[in-house]
Amino acid sequence: MADTNFYKSDLRELEFALFEQARVQDLLGKAPYAHLTEEDARMVMKEAHTFATEVIGPTMSGTDAEGCTLTPAGVKVPAALKPLWKQYFENGWHAVTLPESRGGMGAPHLLGVAVLELMSGANTAFHMYPGLTQGAANLIAAMGSPEQRERYLTRLENGQWSGTMVLTEPHAGSDVGLSTTKAVKNGDGSYAITGNKIFISGGDHDLAENVIHLALARIEGAPKGTRGLSLFIIPKIRVKDDGSLGAPNDVTCTNIEHKMGIHASATCALAFGEKGQCQGWPLGGEPRADEEPGAGMQKMFVFMNGARISVGTQSLGVASTAYLNALEYARTRLQGAHFKSGRGDKGAVPIIMHPDVRRMLIDMKAQVEGCRALLLHAVMLEDRALQADGPAAEALHEDFSLFIPLVKAHLSDVALHVTSTALQVYGGAGYTRDFPAEQYYRDARIFPIYEGTNGIQALDLVGRKLSQSGGALIQRLLKSIGEAQARVKATSGYEREAQALGQALAALQKVLGQYMAFFASGRMDQILVSATRFLELLSRAVCAWLLLEGALIAEAALKGISADNRDRDFYLGKIGSARYYARNLLPPLTGLADVIAAGDDSALTLPDSAFSLGF
Amino acid sequence: MADTNFYKSDLRELEFALFEQARVQDLLGKAPYAHLTEEDARMVMKEAHTFATEVIGPTMSGTDAEGCTLTPAGVKVPAALKPLWKQYFENGWHAVTLPESRGGMGAPHLLGVAVLELMSGANTAFHMYPGLTQGAANLIAAMGSPEQRERYLTRLENGQWSGTMVLTEPHAGSDVGLSTTKAVKNGDGSYAITGNKIFISGGDHDLAENVIHLALARIEGAPKGTRGLSLFIIPKIRVKDDGSLGAPNDVTCTNIEHKMGIHASATCALAFGEKGQCQGWPLGGEPRADEEPGAGMQKMFVFMNGARISVGTQSLGVASTAYLNALEYARTRLQGAHFKSGRGDKGAVPIIMHPDVRRMLIDMKAQVEGCRALLLHAVMLEDRALQADGPAAEALHEDFSLFIPLVKAHLSDVALHVTSTALQVYGGAGYTRDFPAEQYYRDARIFPIYEGTNGIQALDLVGRKLSQSGGALIQRLLKSIGEAQARVKATSGYEREAQALGQALAALQKVLGQYMAFFASGRMDQILVSATRFLELLSRAVCAWLLLEGALIAEAALKGISADNRDRDFYLGKIGSARYYARNLLPPLTGLADVIAAGDDSALTLPDSAFSLGF
Repeated sequence: MADTNFYKSDLRELEFALFEQARVQDLLGKAPYAHLTEEDARMVMKEAHTFATEVIGPTMSGTDAEGCTLTPAGVKVPAALKPLWKQYFENGWHAVTLPESRGGMGAPHLLGVAVLELMSGANTAFHMYPGLTQGAANLIAAMGSPEQRERYLTRLENGQWSGTMVLTEPHAGSDVGLSTTKAVKNGDGSYAITGNKIFISGGDHDLAENVIHLALARIEGAPKGTRGLSLFIIPKIRVKDDGSLGAPNDVTCTNIEHKMGIHASATCALAFGEKGQCQGWPLGGEPRADEEPGAGMQKMFVFMNGARISVGTQSLGVASTAYLNALEYARTRLQGAHFKSGRGDKGAVPIIMHPDVRRMLIDMKAQVEGCRALLLHAVMLEDRALQADGPAAEALHEDFSLFIPLVKAHLSDVALHVTSTALQVYGGAGYTRDFPAEQYYRDARIFPIYEGTNGIQALDLVGRKLSQSGGALIQRLLKSIGEAQARVKATSGYEREAQALGQALAALQKVLGQYMAFFASGRMDQILVSATRFLELLSRAVCAWLLLEGALIAEAALKGISADNRDRDFYLGKIGSARYYARNLLPPLTGLADVIAAGDDSALTLPDSAFSLGF
Repeated sequence: MADTNFYKSDLRELEFALFEQARVQDLLGKAPYAHLTEEDARMVMKEAHTFATEVIGPTMSGTDAEGCTLTPAGVKVPAALKPLWKQYFENGWHAVTLPESRGGMGAPHLLGVAVLELMSGANTAFHMYPGLTQGAANLIAAMGSPEQRERYLTRLENGQWSGTMVLTEPHAGSDVGLSTTKAVKNGDGSYAITGNKIFISGGDHDLAENVIHLALARIEGAPKGTRGLSLFIIPKIRVKDDGSLGAPNDVTCTNIEHKMGIHASATCALAFGEKGQCQGWPLGGEPRADEEPGAGMQKMFVFMNGARISVGTQSLGVASTAYLNALEYARTRLQGAHFKSGRGDKGAVPIIMHPDVRRMLIDMKAQVEGCRALLLHAVMLEDRALQADGPAAEALHEDFSLFIPLVKAHLSDVALHVTSTALQVYGGAGYTRDFPAEQYYRDARIFPIYEGTNGIQALDLVGRKLSQSGGALIQRLLKSIGEAQARVKATSGYEREAQALGQALAALQKVLGQYMAFFASGRMDQILVSATRFLELLSRAVCAWLLLEGALIAEAALKGISADNRDRDFYLGKIGSARYYARNLLPPLTGLADVIAAGDDSALTLPDSAFSLGF
């Protein structure tokens, strides 16, 4: 299977999402995107589509089968990734959103995530290397001292070096404040780092000549918990003042994880300072005496928010190609008689004709497109914040932050659902390695876990984002949905969809009201126990809202289109997705809201031993 | 990982399901179970628990890692399976439900599936070999000629030989009527078989000295479709009249599938008659001239119904051990502060204390127990049918048949959900091979596919079972649920649960009424497109009903129990499962019923090209 190219993406749909719905072109032509036109953006999408399909796509299955190996000389990645890594940087795909001042294209985040969906969907394990490298570079650019920017940025941004984010320790996963990795002042600006980290994606590999770790460690004497963590730059190989490589820095990869999926991505256990010779440099230079506790984590969150959006995007990329592969299979696999029109002249019909298969296909289509609309809407808020000032910019930035847990958790949940449905469309064939469905299913399973489990995303949503600025973020969002609902209601033929969206909105209002009551009566446990459900409720309402907005755009486009234009069917597909979503995925939300609002403590009050007396 | 034993099962819970709720003992002491006592049954469960845990369990991870290999001499299975296969038969675990007359224990099916849950949960890939062998033996016992029973049964029932079911061809999967495997009369009672089959579990291996295939083939001149298929006995090695082995029978394993999971189970492509020398014998002897068309498929369905119950049971076994492993991890993994009581004296609390983790645990617990109750209830109907006569027996058999698609589809769907939730409880650790969660997740993914995809189960439910005997089956089931709902309603403190069950029942009635209307108005497509959803709706209502029955049993048991009895917590756990299920999993069903009843044709009317114009 090594040379089989399974990657599929639908450029027409991406163009709709980007240019007809999110309208990235409205951002262009003014700072900081004054140098870009709609033509440029469309060209980038076409080229990205070609690169993802023709260059990255063919590497997916083979590099999964080959996997990574830990050798005495370090981690070896699958051979095909080396030329790919080179070509990726040479073609500038890491630099879509990188400012022109740093040699990038300086494009909006909107275009960045649309490109990322393609790159990451084509070989999601591969893309983690350049993705994390870009994240590390962005963090150094934002928070590094002038010397650090000078020393690291260029080489991280041309692929000569790579970057990581280093948080987890065996006993400190979600609870990163338990970290014990230590940093002791050397007196020369550097710190002696000692500690063991695990689950470091791209922690070691042979794609680049150096790995620049951005690692959390606790400076001697700093307080316990996350407050006492600082962020250090720890190169795998020390960098001399002239930028050339020096001696190894006592960072050893001691193990790589044997995982269910993303085999081409090396997940490393790293030992820092086993010989007492690991040097790290505080990001941003020596911490100031007046620096607030928790500054290290705050810096890491700049990285992490980007990483969460990236996980949502890779979830979307994998879900989308899983859907499109299943669609192609359903169009070509002949099996069974149609319940009405019989077997046709081939003795059996394409399985896409069977209602139950069609249900699976439209469900995947609607969910994938709903996720894409959610992601692009979120990122558009970030882009708009950059073009706004003062309170307007602040509000947009807040609005974006509300979406981060939705993008990370909902899109990764949907990726599980869609990759599973896609596999089911294949039947037994989908369980074999002859088709990509099983790899998508395995790869996708990490998405709801890393960069903050989806449970943690839900807690971020209900525990932080809902109450932020006195609840203004969620109220602004509900207002937007309400306004859209009124537009849908005013559109002839959308009565049922408008009603469904209205009921979803009422369900959200009900839960928010009840959350206030829970909070006021000290029943915080009810908010925590239902957080995951609330995230699903809100995400679905948002997807339905945006899909219906898309349907109205499609309706308008259909009015001016000739009967033989292929785009007709495309727009009918957009309307179909929206109607399906509203009619099928919204109504159960009312019951879900009832469940949350009624408050059930069966999970909370059960004695621990009641879960099982023993095995 | 080869020597790590991950298998966990909860004997107390199994005993509750079997003796306190399904009351297997009520079947014992009278024919055909006159020779068995409750003591016997309890002893069998204890021994089965020990064998599964201590003998089978340790083989799971290692045999998955080792997998099967195709060699010129045939398929080699993982080495550890050989002594296990021998011990399994020596200990008589294949023979729990086998009649005494055939050397078995002659126990009710209830005890059979309870034992099967253990055996199959401990190494689900291994258990497919003896499971399919037992199925083949049962089919020969039921349908074979006296000579065939004499020739094959003893050796299939002592593990000297193994058995298979051979249906699928590359172009004939769900649509088995497309089979082209041919049978031509040899004139000596045998037929010359030629054809290629795929996806044959245990199609070749080195556990037994012969493999007895039960294969569908079309006798020359027979009609097209399933009507023209006959069922043949095709031994891998020919059997001489004295029962000893003769020459190979021109059956070759040409490939084994490289699958995502169940690696220890050899999934074979078989070529029959490549050299024109494959002999098969019609099951039951030469087809009679007056035999109805489709007799071959009817015989295969005897096998298949058993196999569908087995898939439901293995789904339950895997889901249960996945839950219990996640539970153990949640009890021991220390991470984070409790939202109210803080970090405790270990610096972090077991994650079972976090509401969101607790929600995942109780959801798995309730769903697993609901599935177990559903399975045992179904099988009890089959057992009771054997102890009844005339119309009562017929009605019980029909009632059982209604449950077959629920057992196959719902239990396998829940297995996906539970194995995924279990993996999530582990966080990143669950994605690695250091823990069993990832194997459970991979193994379980085949369950909704084989032995009839879950879509086909749903079509069997709505297209056949609902209308059978004028709808009497579903009406009897709803009556049972209704009566139970009245009992729950009459129980103090269960008002909310009774209301939820009542609403689920109303939802079912609503859909059934609308199905009649769809049918009457020629909108069969609406029934087909919603079949999967209806199956979920019905299955959840049944699980809730049976869990609530269990809760009432637990309430009664609690009344007579001392405060320090460990069983107290067990019964509280049963009540917790039932309350959780009713309060959390039933309310969304009302919306689901609305969705079905409203009838949405967005999937049905969309042009095929609207699913995507191209990739």
